[in-house]
Amino acid sequence: MDADQMLQDYQRRIEPGLQAFFREKIKYTENIDHDTAHIVRSLSEFTLRKAKRLRAAFLYYGYALFAPPNDDVVHASLAMELVQSYLLIHDDIIDRDPMRRGKPTVHVQYAAGKDEHYGNSMAVLIGNVGNSYAVDILTEAASRFSDQQKIRAVREMNSYILTVILGQVRDLQQQRDWMKGGPISENDILKTIHMKSGVYTVEGPLYLGAILAGADDRELKQLSRYAKPLGIAFQLRDDINGLYGDEGKTGKPADSDVKQGKCTLLMYRALQAATPVEQAALRAALGNQGLTAQQLDEVRDIVKRRSLDSIVAFADEQAGRAVSAIRDAPFRAEGKEYVVQDGDVIEFKI
Amino acid sequence: MDADQMLQDYQRRIEPGLQAFFREKIKYTENIDHDTAHIVRSLSEFTLRKAKRLRAAFLYYGYALFAPPNDDVVHASLAMELVQSYLLIHDDIIDRDPMRRGKPTVHVQYAAGKDEHYGNSMAVLIGNVGNSYAVDILTEAASRFSDQQKIRAVREMNSYILTVILGQVRDLQQQRDWMKGGPISENDILKTIHMKSGVYTVEGPLYLGAILAGADDRELKQLSRYAKPLGIAFQLRDDINGLYGDEGKTGKPADSDVKQGKCTLLMYRALQAATPVEQAALRAALGNQGLTAQQLDEVRDIVKRRSLDSIVAFADEQAGRAVSAIRDAPFRAEGKEYVVQDGDVIEFKI
Repeated sequence: MDADQMLQDYQRRIEPGLQAFFREKIKYTENIDHDTAHIVRSLSEFTLRKAKRLRAAFLYYGYALFAPPNDDVVHASLAMELVQSYLLIHDDIIDRDPMRRGKPTVHVQYAAGKDEHYGNSMAVLIGNVGNSYAVDILTEAASRFSDQQKIRAVREMNSYILTVILGQVRDLQQQRDWMKGGPISENDILKTIHMKSGVYTVEGPLYLGAILAGADDRELKQLSRYAKPLGIAFQLRDDINGLYGDEGKTGKPADSDVKQGKCTLLMYRALQAATPVEQAALRAALGNQGLTAQQLDEVRDIVKRRSLDSIVAFADEQAGRAVSAIRDAPFRAEGKEYVVQDGDVIEFKI
Repeated sequence: MDADQMLQDYQRRIEPGLQAFFREKIKYTENIDHDTAHIVRSLSEFTLRKAKRLRAAFLYYGYALFAPPNDDVVHASLAMELVQSYLLIHDDIIDRDPMRRGKPTVHVQYAAGKDEHYGNSMAVLIGNVGNSYAVDILTEAASRFSDQQKIRAVREMNSYILTVILGQVRDLQQQRDWMKGGPISENDILKTIHMKSGVYTVEGPLYLGAILAGADDRELKQLSRYAKPLGIAFQLRDDINGLYGDEGKTGKPADSDVKQGKCTLLMYRALQAATPVEQAALRAALGNQGLTAQQLDEVRDIVKRRSLDSIVAFADEQAGRAVSAIRDAPFRAEGKEYVVQDGDVIEFKI
């Protein structure tokens, strides 16, 4: 089976679980307070939007690397989607993103076009509920997992959430420095990518699956040698996708990274390699809320000339390193089949 | 010993624990990323500001109701102060409060007078770290507590955080309705108080202490009969305190509730009982960002005439109900000595 089919196979298992989880939570919350249960319905609507469930799938197949997967692991993997909702809902407030997964973001829905502060406030609280639910899912996980394993998993999840949050802070700081023309190095950007994306998307979820399957610290370290370069490949491809991808597939406007003036490695290298005229055009576009379609096309052309090939090659090289770190590892075939092919899975986002 | 001394006794035990906790977390975070560890230092500075540690003390003496307290319970009780920081930092963003515990709020510190959105963004993330730390503290609690107890405690904490969040949403909604002159009943307000304050300040912390001491569900129910009325008494006295208290003691400006147009029961009853002229003066003051010192004095006078006595009496009656619910309960004397006298502890805030 190819990784694409394996991901779809997993998606068919998680979706009913997510739906059942929220049906129960909404019912429970209605009983506490009917007037405010809408925030759980909002979290449910956001979480159930069409999404790839990449992180949850990494937990599931991370488990499969060490033990045969089962319904209890599918249930535990819901935690990843709740963490994802928690972090995305807050991230969308911070980045002032209007759209996510093809629909308005939570803070925009609650602001209802008139009260931005109220919208942000509600979205902060709704994200927080997602965090509590994620911890709940791991602690209520089936008796197949020992209490000790559950606690280890919760602690690992907290530790990786902390790293992601530090990565978000790095990103905000870098963004400010970058817009002010301050000095930033490739290493600075790569460290942010690792913390904000690598740990979040690949390493954290894989660790959780492995921990629930009883993996030891040495085995986790081996997973890191795969996860780190794959996280970088993932983010670089996601950045390309953000600029050239199909809005229908990415679920967010193709001009959003440029409008935000996002400090991607793609843009960083383009600026480094650009002629003075091109640099001026890029600088006029980055962070420009009034960006025109013509300007966006110009940015795409310049990036294509100056950095796209090098970023594609860099991403491929990192994905290759990831695969070779795990290909010969003594892990179960089912899990390896998925993770080894992950270059493909992530590619199809583009 | 009176409750005041018992609280001070506990404070002397928790402060070094909080300091040691943050020293270690800051060191650990510096190792992950020196550039962003300031957010943990900010959380540390906020948490270590002079505060009563009332919730943490409820956890400690809630434990003492069922078993002799010890250093491990002191450590577990740090979780309450981390939850407190998490909820307060987010609440201050939502309420746009400039001061907390006598110093600028976290979002104001990070905004540095120029970038409100950046300040709010950082404060959202810093609050989130507090939540993760609170869960960590309970899961790392000493081996005196079984893994099963730790999991039960984490689940109870999540459940009560959810109730508090729903209470915050109720509060925001009520605030909007109230400012628009919509119909609100005393019961609506009391339900919000119970969810936002009663569960948060009294019931949740007591439950956690009791759970760590091995209390069963029947015993928890008995604690609720104490916690619910005491939570109401606490909030009503806090509202009085907010309007008439000494800024040096409350740590926030005495006009902040009025400027925010906060829908307290104190203000609600004052409006109900006021003459048309007094009503007009109250309405002109509530939610008025340009509130003058003279207006504030007028509000104080009207409230004193119209609702203060009835709220003082209501709070006393609720505190009395709380005490009689626990006075004859078959719990340990040390814990009872504290909780039975709690009317006093809470009084001294005023």
